[in-house]
Amino acid sequence: MDKLIEKIKEKQNPSVAGLDPKLDYIPAHILDKHIKEHGKTLQGAAGAILEFNKGLIDALEGVVPAVKPQSAYYESYGLPGLSAMHETISYAQQKGMYVILDVKRNDIGSTAGAYSAAYLGETDVCGEKVRAFTPDCVTVNGYLGTDGVAPFVKDCEAFDKDIFVLVKTSNPSSGELQDLKADGEAVYEKMAKLVDGWGSGNIGKYGYSHVGCVVGATWPQQAEVARKLMPHAYFLVPGYGAQGGGAKDVVPCFNKDGLGAIVNSSRGIMCAYQKQGLSGEAFAEAARAEAIRMRDEITACI
Amino acid sequence: MDKLIEKIKEKQNPSVAGLDPKLDYIPAHILDKHIKEHGKTLQGAAGAILEFNKGLIDALEGVVPAVKPQSAYYESYGLPGLSAMHETISYAQQKGMYVILDVKRNDIGSTAGAYSAAYLGETDVCGEKVRAFTPDCVTVNGYLGTDGVAPFVKDCEAFDKDIFVLVKTSNPSSGELQDLKADGEAVYEKMAKLVDGWGSGNIGKYGYSHVGCVVGATWPQQAEVARKLMPHAYFLVPGYGAQGGGAKDVVPCFNKDGLGAIVNSSRGIMCAYQKQGLSGEAFAEAARAEAIRMRDEITACI
Repeated sequence: MDKLIEKIKEKQNPSVAGLDPKLDYIPAHILDKHIKEHGKTLQGAAGAILEFNKGLIDALEGVVPAVKPQSAYYESYGLPGLSAMHETISYAQQKGMYVILDVKRNDIGSTAGAYSAAYLGETDVCGEKVRAFTPDCVTVNGYLGTDGVAPFVKDCEAFDKDIFVLVKTSNPSSGELQDLKADGEAVYEKMAKLVDGWGSGNIGKYGYSHVGCVVGATWPQQAEVARKLMPHAYFLVPGYGAQGGGAKDVVPCFNKDGLGAIVNSSRGIMCAYQKQGLSGEAFAEAARAEAIRMRDEITACI
Repeated sequence: MDKLIEKIKEKQNPSVAGLDPKLDYIPAHILDKHIKEHGKTLQGAAGAILEFNKGLIDALEGVVPAVKPQSAYYESYGLPGLSAMHETISYAQQKGMYVILDVKRNDIGSTAGAYSAAYLGETDVCGEKVRAFTPDCVTVNGYLGTDGVAPFVKDCEAFDKDIFVLVKTSNPSSGELQDLKADGEAVYEKMAKLVDGWGSGNIGKYGYSHVGCVVGATWPQQAEVARKLMPHAYFLVPGYGAQGGGAKDVVPCFNKDGLGAIVNSSRGIMCAYQKQGLSGEAFAEAARAEAIRMRDEITACI
């Protein structure tokens, strides 16, 4: 996580801007232009998404250390959407941002290896090593246990990449399985201990491993427990803002060193212009202002 | 699941051919042709994968009711790989096959809705309804609980699609979380009860719901327990063959009606020509012969 931590320190900002492109979020002048050119097609939608993302990335440059594209939205626009995702990743990296691709992938060992090759490592094409997608980090679902996570950890170490494993998700029904108590310990606590173990082989210069975790801002009590169980894990914290988590709720995710967590906001930043009743032309300034407000609100609490 | 069941009955074959394209599996004459044309690139790899898949689908027509492309492998070949996946899905459907896309997607409600739109439902582009990918069914990871699965269930009902939710996966370390006992019940049993509930609103004419489950052939004892907990769930059973599960191990996944499960084989069918020491030119006949052998072996046991 050294690369992410350095960017957080440089920007003095432990937050990440989610890029979850719904067409409803896109200013009319951008959307209309692409629909005019390509019709009401996936191609038209993807063109608008890419232009909007680039505008957001330009606006957030120098403010946020990282962006987090959510793969689901890009996949919902098919192959053109995935192409827009691929270009968004490259564009953000050109602007010096760390890219967390939120894919929540998971499978048995051999197949997890293919996912890891797709996003963290390399694909071998008859001896030639090729990169399929180029994020710095992906999210992973650990429900299959160690052998489904090991290929990602291996690539993290080989290619200096990172993963965030789901421990306690932000959604209302996360407790149905994650809060079940086994031998007096919740399932999410068991997962936390696994995460701690998976990361133990490679602790970076700031004391954090390649293996981080996802803990929702909506569960501050569980975050406190999780923080103790995973002293070396960076926390990716969704659920701030639109999902109901406040700045105080994210405090337990941080360590005493002021590091240890990065808080995500997607709609709050992307739709700032809408929430303030501004015109679509103002989307970039509104997004930047909201990212600065969020940064200041969080850093004031930790 | 009515559509899948009808195809199983028609072919008298409760098995599915996995399409997990690794370049090592592809006959040299196919691979060489595409590498010659596009170089050692993702494009070259994807071209070879698509030709191999089409050859397999042609060979398996009339024998297997369904194919299961594993998304991880296609993703590892980037955008060209995903394009090959998209075309493979369409080609198999043109040949009358039911397509299970193995993606194991999962997220919080709003984002799960985007995944479901991508694979089962429709994407709204300014009022125009567009299909991003067109499988009949996807696999889902239920670790996030009900609100992360509900959008898929809703689209299953609206678009006559199906899902298989991970209950007990085939890999060696699946027990680390899935076998933990909470109040005397394993986590996979809790998941099984959730699956039963998620599917209860819509039982088809053969007594099965839109919500199936994944239970590995490597865990026959857990399969027996799971079968009782989910009488209306179809079982997708990986782990037969290469992973060590035999025909007798899959028996507990079936109901007394001879229905209730579909057994996957990927490497066994795709690499049949290699296992028999045949030349690459014989891949199609070898795959067909292996699919028939597997069909007969399984139907003899149930």
